[in-house]
Amino acid sequence: MKTLPEAREIWVGRTGSLRTAEETIDVSSGLGRITTRPVTALRSVPHYHGAAMDGYAVRATDTYGASDTTPIRLRVGESAYAVDTGDPLPEGSDAVIMIENVEGVSGSLIEIRSAAFPWQHVRKVGEDIVSGELLLPQQHILRPVDVGSLLAAGVLSISVFARPELFIQPTGSEIIPAARAAEAKPGEIVEFNGAILGGMVEECGGVAVLRDIVPDCYDSIKEALREGVESSADIIVINAGSSAGSEDYTASVIGELGEVLVHGVAMMPGKPVILAMVSGKPVVGIPGYPVSAIMAFEQFVRPLLYSLRAVQPPAFPTVSATLGRKLPSKLGLEEFVRVILGRVEDRLVAMPISRGAGIITSLSRADGILQIPQEQEGVDEGAEVEVRLLRPKDQLDCTLIMIGSHDNAIDLLANELKGRDSRVHLSSSNVGSLGGLLALRRKQTHFAGSHLLDTQSGEYNYSYVERYLKGTGVRLVQLAMREQGLLITKGNPKGINGINDLLRPDVTFINRQGGSGTRVLFDYCLQQLGLSAEGIKGYDQEEFTHMSVAVRISSGRADAGMAIHSSARALNLDFIPIARERYDLLIAESAWSDFKVRMALDIIASDSFRRKTASMGGYDVSNSGMIMGIWDGATWVERSGG
Amino acid sequence: MKTLPEAREIWVGRTGSLRTAEETIDVSSGLGRITTRPVTALRSVPHYHGAAMDGYAVRATDTYGASDTTPIRLRVGESAYAVDTGDPLPEGSDAVIMIENVEGVSGSLIEIRSAAFPWQHVRKVGEDIVSGELLLPQQHILRPVDVGSLLAAGVLSISVFARPELFIQPTGSEIIPAARAAEAKPGEIVEFNGAILGGMVEECGGVAVLRDIVPDCYDSIKEALREGVESSADIIVINAGSSAGSEDYTASVIGELGEVLVHGVAMMPGKPVILAMVSGKPVVGIPGYPVSAIMAFEQFVRPLLYSLRAVQPPAFPTVSATLGRKLPSKLGLEEFVRVILGRVEDRLVAMPISRGAGIITSLSRADGILQIPQEQEGVDEGAEVEVRLLRPKDQLDCTLIMIGSHDNAIDLLANELKGRDSRVHLSSSNVGSLGGLLALRRKQTHFAGSHLLDTQSGEYNYSYVERYLKGTGVRLVQLAMREQGLLITKGNPKGINGINDLLRPDVTFINRQGGSGTRVLFDYCLQQLGLSAEGIKGYDQEEFTHMSVAVRISSGRADAGMAIHSSARALNLDFIPIARERYDLLIAESAWSDFKVRMALDIIASDSFRRKTASMGGYDVSNSGMIMGIWDGATWVERSGG
Repeated sequence: MKTLPEAREIWVGRTGSLRTAEETIDVSSGLGRITTRPVTALRSVPHYHGAAMDGYAVRATDTYGASDTTPIRLRVGESAYAVDTGDPLPEGSDAVIMIENVEGVSGSLIEIRSAAFPWQHVRKVGEDIVSGELLLPQQHILRPVDVGSLLAAGVLSISVFARPELFIQPTGSEIIPAARAAEAKPGEIVEFNGAILGGMVEECGGVAVLRDIVPDCYDSIKEALREGVESSADIIVINAGSSAGSEDYTASVIGELGEVLVHGVAMMPGKPVILAMVSGKPVVGIPGYPVSAIMAFEQFVRPLLYSLRAVQPPAFPTVSATLGRKLPSKLGLEEFVRVILGRVEDRLVAMPISRGAGIITSLSRADGILQIPQEQEGVDEGAEVEVRLLRPKDQLDCTLIMIGSHDNAIDLLANELKGRDSRVHLSSSNVGSLGGLLALRRKQTHFAGSHLLDTQSGEYNYSYVERYLKGTGVRLVQLAMREQGLLITKGNPKGINGINDLLRPDVTFINRQGGSGTRVLFDYCLQQLGLSAEGIKGYDQEEFTHMSVAVRISSGRADAGMAIHSSARALNLDFIPIARERYDLLIAESAWSDFKVRMALDIIASDSFRRKTASMGGYDVSNSGMIMGIWDGATWVERSGG
Repeated sequence: MKTLPEAREIWVGRTGSLRTAEETIDVSSGLGRITTRPVTALRSVPHYHGAAMDGYAVRATDTYGASDTTPIRLRVGESAYAVDTGDPLPEGSDAVIMIENVEGVSGSLIEIRSAAFPWQHVRKVGEDIVSGELLLPQQHILRPVDVGSLLAAGVLSISVFARPELFIQPTGSEIIPAARAAEAKPGEIVEFNGAILGGMVEECGGVAVLRDIVPDCYDSIKEALREGVESSADIIVINAGSSAGSEDYTASVIGELGEVLVHGVAMMPGKPVILAMVSGKPVVGIPGYPVSAIMAFEQFVRPLLYSLRAVQPPAFPTVSATLGRKLPSKLGLEEFVRVILGRVEDRLVAMPISRGAGIITSLSRADGILQIPQEQEGVDEGAEVEVRLLRPKDQLDCTLIMIGSHDNAIDLLANELKGRDSRVHLSSSNVGSLGGLLALRRKQTHFAGSHLLDTQSGEYNYSYVERYLKGTGVRLVQLAMREQGLLITKGNPKGINGINDLLRPDVTFINRQGGSGTRVLFDYCLQQLGLSAEGIKGYDQEEFTHMSVAVRISSGRADAGMAIHSSARALNLDFIPIARERYDLLIAESAWSDFKVRMALDIIASDSFRRKTASMGGYDVSNSGMIMGIWDGATWVERSGG
């Protein structure tokens, strides 16, 4: 096991001087290609002295002395020649007089009333480019304007580095092509890393050759590796089998055919990476978990795709942010933490999301990546950190942060926001209603979703705001009233009719986590019915979202769970209504006039949004968008009923 | 004539709601494409509860109470099942115990010494993606990781906006295809705008259809426009003929077939632009000068290429810089000034370069563009300005600025620097030796090239440094000794043998600008020979570089001019040696330890650089890289001989 810097040094030491082939291409198809050698102009631009204005070409010395009182007359065809812009200057002339400054006297005589200076209104030979001058140095990446200047200078073909070619070999007996995803059986895993890596290669200006999957079989992998090495590819990637498990043959196959330089790097995700050379070609064993695969690719393959063309990879854009939550990290391990990023009260806040290497959405939903160096034992809450951006920097001010309870209508809102302004992006972290209130208190979010029932008063959210948001102003806006109830298997095979049935020994329940509004509601219902949680099988099993409760039931792992109506609809489950609850957005006072919040509120109050929300099932949208309360941090400035 | 904001408003008003067609494509080829509608997951990921470790799947409740003192035994196949990572959990199990924590007792019995908690080391159904959840909103630009998560969620095809198609029609009777550049006659202009615009379209994710050139003929242009409008193109561009000249038919042709919205925008370059609608399609008349064409494209076509797909164009990266030279600008005119950019003494300095719209290299050699708004009457020297970057931001610290006299070996140096580190870029502004000293004094450059002869002492550079660089420390490093002489037409048809012959009435001379080292040298030679400039025809005609002097002679516009030997070689001219002069690099003390300067000095002293310099002709490189003097701003700390 090497540290990341050690592994990089070994890798660059062995691959840094490798280059792709040189090839000659048409300049007109050269966009993005990289020159292998300096390019000099084959002709001057302009290649002749030309008129830069419509008018008459003259010899400047013939015009000296011309003035209003002493006009000078020139004979057309002898000492003055009519020219249009772009026309070559006739022999002997060295200046152009604009047509506006010439008076015609007769067909063959013109009169001028001011002198021309030499080279006035003339585009001189080589004014832009001089034949033989350096147009582009070596290792230059061609932009559209370079293509233009090359063509202008008569350069029609140039020498560039060939596009580096990457051979991607997916392996694994359990892996099936994405085309067969619909028929995937338990234990089968859909191949999609290849498409991700291929896309990344394309973004680096390379070409990916994505191979058919081979099973976890020593000889098949060996044959595939041999084919890769013997092909025209510059780099061979084997994905995966790079761990040390019983069926992980990649390292031993590579070891047989070539030299393993590094097996395992102290980075997370991405640890089980293999760096190797086979017959002079770089071979990389990439881990199977998608986030691991991407991180390993970025550390070891991306730089190589550029160094093969003798250039440095473009730097990743970064931004400075305040860390919203303490992050522990192991000493000696380089960690890559995905975060969401948003500007809350003038601070750019980075909130970490899932750290699981197998969770592809931890990357696709992230706004940035925070790298914790190996020398560091975690990062404290509130620390200033440098975050690599996964979205354009100018979109940071367009990111709306929501932390708290999730509702399916929030996805709808995210989509509608994008429709109004493609830069506006809703980044959400689903941590339950109470988690949202705490994030508001810590100034980590623009708004929170909350449906917290006060079991004393029967009211929603107010008492929690009073208790948790002392000193933090918020406004409560109703998203909708929604139905909570029991999700049960389609057709209700266990004959469940209500909460009472959860006490039956043949019924398995799935609960929500403490602090979630749904948990509070469920416990309240038990209390009202005078039931004890003791007898409920599965009461101690918790899920974090409505949808994961629904998934648990639809996969047969539980018989019932409390969730909102729309999640039953989404997964085609039966639903027993239990309660009607209010789901509010708690909007930080500081964000109230923010344009994104305005836009969100405008959408929520719109007919089309209400209609779409209602159609998901179980929503009463008659008061969507209504302000339910204004809390100034100490008292209620305004408050609707319960 | 409209102002830029007016023109933009009219244009967006008429084109803002246009959209390209929707099409369904394979997700795997979706990189960079933009969704037309929200995309939801078709399956959960994972789609089964799977082992996240190699070991034994158990029911957690069966393990409760296990400890070192009270181990628990489980029967394999009954209450424990061997699983590898990725295997589905057998019915009834809900946790995995890692193989390392299991002791085998017999073939069918295992022993554990600590309890498992439910869902330990299990990848649960929907942990990553829940079937039915929103994966991507509408108007989302697909990244590699999105392609991966779509495939993972069983989404194989998606609806996206078709790539917008741009129809580019070059027009002009004087225009010839780039392929014929070598045979271009005076008055013929090579077409290369189409390739530039096509490349820009490609960078915006569009498709360019580049048409054959049509002559300046009303009917041909009309026919071409009609074909464009009737084709599948979303936008039609006519280049050029958009001015108001006698052969500029574009506006009247468009007027006949459709509606001209704007003809002429108060911007420079780019003024003669036409914005129009023909049969519901946007038509843009783009000016002919390349920089004008690019600016007009960026203002009116680029945003449209994005709005056709309902997204905002990515913001151009900008940087804050100090303007190095006063820039006058006309009120009411939006001006785009090309600048070079470099960090000199912790200030990022922006130095304007040529403002000619016809000079394509004013853009290809620029590091940035400074936009002077129409409300502003120029910008003062030293003002803080916002500059749009034309190079990656991380390369700003890698830009080496050279202002002063040019030497062909500087091009060589620029190329070698790039070879050592592809990020290092030499930006130069050729303003003559004295201009370089002034730039050093104003802290606008890292170094200057200078070959200023003190006509009193016969020494180079020293007395000028003393005079102009009071308070500014510099070190003088010899680049080379080089031959200056008279360039004359190949074969010497006029029989010129030296400076004396320049007085002959049949000989036309071409001079260099005042302040240039070569001009100083030439005047010194005249003085030594006791000759007067009076009798030299062309003495008052000035060029700014050696190469442009050479071009003047090779094109037959002058018979002789003073320049360095290598410029004669480059353009195959004859050369009469006159003097041997020292060309030094004057390096700002503040830049002396800068890594780029170190790299440049290392290159200059290298054998390979000397060899290449010598091979250009007329260079004595025996002392290249030698320190000729150290000036601390008041006295010479060190000084070599003359």
